[in-house]
Amino acid sequence: MSTVTAAEEQNVVHAYGWAARDPSGFLSPFHFTRRANGDNDITIKILYCGICHTDLHLAKDEIGMTNYPLVPGHEIVGEVTQVGSKVTKFKTGDKAGVGCNVSSCGECENCEQGFENYCPEVRLIFNGQFPDGSRSFGGYSDKLVINERYAVLIPDELPLDGAAPLLCAGITIYSPMRYFGLDKCGQHLGVVGLGGLGHVTVKFAKAFGMKVTVISTSPSKEKEALERLGADAFLVSHDQNQLEAAMGTMDGIMDTVSAPHSLLPLAGLLKTNGKLILVGAPVPDPELPVFPLLTGRKLIAGSANGGMKETQEMVDFAAKHKITADIEVISMDYVNTAFQRLAKNDVKYRFVIDIANTLRRPQSTH
Amino acid sequence: MSTVTAAEEQNVVHAYGWAARDPSGFLSPFHFTRRANGDNDITIKILYCGICHTDLHLAKDEIGMTNYPLVPGHEIVGEVTQVGSKVTKFKTGDKAGVGCNVSSCGECENCEQGFENYCPEVRLIFNGQFPDGSRSFGGYSDKLVINERYAVLIPDELPLDGAAPLLCAGITIYSPMRYFGLDKCGQHLGVVGLGGLGHVTVKFAKAFGMKVTVISTSPSKEKEALERLGADAFLVSHDQNQLEAAMGTMDGIMDTVSAPHSLLPLAGLLKTNGKLILVGAPVPDPELPVFPLLTGRKLIAGSANGGMKETQEMVDFAAKHKITADIEVISMDYVNTAFQRLAKNDVKYRFVIDIANTLRRPQSTH
Repeated sequence: MSTVTAAEEQNVVHAYGWAARDPSGFLSPFHFTRRANGDNDITIKILYCGICHTDLHLAKDEIGMTNYPLVPGHEIVGEVTQVGSKVTKFKTGDKAGVGCNVSSCGECENCEQGFENYCPEVRLIFNGQFPDGSRSFGGYSDKLVINERYAVLIPDELPLDGAAPLLCAGITIYSPMRYFGLDKCGQHLGVVGLGGLGHVTVKFAKAFGMKVTVISTSPSKEKEALERLGADAFLVSHDQNQLEAAMGTMDGIMDTVSAPHSLLPLAGLLKTNGKLILVGAPVPDPELPVFPLLTGRKLIAGSANGGMKETQEMVDFAAKHKITADIEVISMDYVNTAFQRLAKNDVKYRFVIDIANTLRRPQSTH
Repeated sequence: MSTVTAAEEQNVVHAYGWAARDPSGFLSPFHFTRRANGDNDITIKILYCGICHTDLHLAKDEIGMTNYPLVPGHEIVGEVTQVGSKVTKFKTGDKAGVGCNVSSCGECENCEQGFENYCPEVRLIFNGQFPDGSRSFGGYSDKLVINERYAVLIPDELPLDGAAPLLCAGITIYSPMRYFGLDKCGQHLGVVGLGGLGHVTVKFAKAFGMKVTVISTSPSKEKEALERLGADAFLVSHDQNQLEAAMGTMDGIMDTVSAPHSLLPLAGLLKTNGKLILVGAPVPDPELPVFPLLTGRKLIAGSANGGMKETQEMVDFAAKHKITADIEVISMDYVNTAFQRLAKNDVKYRFVIDIANTLRRPQSTH
């Protein structure tokens, strides 16, 4: 039953999707509203949405910040169906991509430099609240209304399903690689972990012309890393001989692993001035390997997500270099099974929901 | 008794100084030899030598790498008394400074860029061994023979006693401030710890035009920091209200403290993209505060010492801006008392030994 008034009714868009209602994380059909398309907004008919591990964490309230009901999804690609009067970047029919960011202050130093993701007022698409108090819901749903600032234009050359994960996984690794200068032809990059983030890191690094060594706990991933993803070398992280042979050889390391692990051997793999960039969030905090930092002027940094300007740059770069995520396309009603498989890392490398063809509108009052 | 042959006798310079003989760290007079002045070498009559905490650690073998007898001293200023035929930077009578580095490969990428301190073959003046197998002895001694590459020209404007600590303390903080871009007018710098390194950091930061906040466990240091050293603000590191008020305000932090301490509040003080630079070596390794790194694209780095090119630049900058260390000049025979006081941090801020006037040549066969 709808309880909105007639006046409110005029100012909302009726949407539907799948939501988690409690920490079981189980998803089921859900009706909700989004704001009406404003002057600076575009409305997007969602076509594909990737499943990021964060979706699973949030659905199960494993981070402790979930407001149920939660509609996950922040790797969104769709078609623009409506544009506001002041919209300049999009026209109806364009393909648009949306990631984590849906609102920011627009005025702080970070916003001005295009790093909305570090704005103190940034609001995230999942589980967030807009400044007007309305809830933000994610991309496991049929449509989205968003200020055009927080959407990017997906180039025609980019397959839409494989592009969806770029809106989170892609920008999460592209942003720090660019910012920290780990994007130079001839540099040697280590990539720790070969999952959703790691496999995309290998692709971008190869497109930058880098030498890439995948660092993994799983010797079984060597063939995949070298033959299919095009990495140049593979290093089993618990093999002391392999570690020692590679000591001091890497300009940078992208560490995509959230499971607890020691940073000491990774710091040892870096050259003088080498950079170890964390994009996963290992819990508990690892020990800081002070000695190799001091004696080699090395740094350890973190990075989360990316800004809108660099997200556009990233999808344009991906289109030019034919980079997409390796995906398994699923139907909406497979999502709970996909969550179970994702929890076991049983996916190469990203599930993407075929929203347009498989999200059936459930019965509702609308 | 000397056991060298006549031939060897011709190829050495007889020197004397004070050495530690065992982990008591007690220093006493010591005769030794240095190599004869080669074509690229200069001989320096040592005038002043600073006492760095590392001297104390090495004398007591607290780092576990000491070869006794050990002549400490790596903050050396003296007068050039002899120059080799190929020497270009110095002439007799010039004032020269020598720090930690006394030899490196000269050919690696680090050496080519002027960062001999990160050369894999770098030899340190204290406790080191030259490539020819001869021992290296430090500056608590009367004279020094060194390849001119590892000496810098001390400008006439710089008082020699207060300049001595710049050769280690000065370059240790100057090098990373330059390299990591914490040298811009208007930036806000935190300085953790107000000792030998910290007080020099404040002086260089003020000369760069930065806003400086001293962060200390000791409220008693506030007046000193603000009134005498010219810091702009003082923050007691265990005062939660002061910490919270300063959250997210600093472009960078120079952390000079080797005592165990948490990095989490320091990371919180940084702005987005802020940089926390460790120049002390806290033992055991502290925890890496991952969350603030991720959410603010912050970095933690280490740095040790500096290269020769930037050491020259540093002393020239110090001369221009009238920067010297605050020192207590002592006589050679006070050194063991000075070590005891240093162990209790009872010095503002650096002991400097007046070598030329107080090192008495002990009886010997030479």
